[in-house]
Amino acid sequence: MIYGISHVGVAVQDIEAALKYFSRILKIPMPEIHSAPEKKMRFAVIDVGGVGIELLEDKSSDGRVANFVKEKGEGIEHICFLTDSIEKDMDELKERNFDFYSRGPVTGLRGKKIGFSKNEALAFELSEP
Amino acid sequence: MIYGISHVGVAVQDIEAALKYFSRILKIPMPEIHSAPEKKMRFAVIDVGGVGIELLEDKSSDGRVANFVKEKGEGIEHICFLTDSIEKDMDELKERNFDFYSRGPVTGLRGKKIGFSKNEALAFELSEP
Repeated sequence: MIYGISHVGVAVQDIEAALKYFSRILKIPMPEIHSAPEKKMRFAVIDVGGVGIELLEDKSSDGRVANFVKEKGEGIEHICFLTDSIEKDMDELKERNFDFYSRGPVTGLRGKKIGFSKNEALAFELSEP
Repeated sequence: MIYGISHVGVAVQDIEAALKYFSRILKIPMPEIHSAPEKKMRFAVIDVGGVGIELLEDKSSDGRVANFVKEKGEGIEHICFLTDSIEKDMDELKERNFDFYSRGPVTGLRGKKIGFSKNEALAFELSEP
């Protein structure tokens, strides 16, 4: 069952600049930047009252986030819902004609089980906590 | 102080279609659609574990959401943070060179005090609950 929002993913070109922006708004220290060099990505998560702002910098040539920035510029790229049963929810959504990038959940940047929707206009993910 | 996330605003072209999409994902009844005819807007809010998904349809010629859809297509348009002191937070952010559309808070679609940022790449709002 989907019961909440895990985080909102923000596609950025320069993660240091974006973190400065958000840490100024939220008056928090600069969060730690993590790297996923195999994906040419860097990311950081800011917790705001239990919901994450996930900043994503993608320097690959054709990654999902890199393509988003190329087409639309920096901005909010996805909403990630929380589910307590990702396999079951993905199966049910596929029966209702939702397209996911993978048949079952994959491991996301942060080591969680995630299913990515192919709907680019209203991107969303499912994630187990 | 900013202490949470009120909602995530999603710009859509057809609010009925978008609500069908989200209500299928979340297995909820179709939420009520509200109108703001003076702005040529319709909107609906879906609560997901305490955070709103605010769907926004803007049929005006040059409204913020209409312009977003024209330039980028449907997608997630803003994050609205919660503050317990909107005037104070807006003043402090302005001192740190944040641009808002208005000097002080305005009344949003849902009757709340809101400050809209002019930063279009990483749109955000502040709102009092």
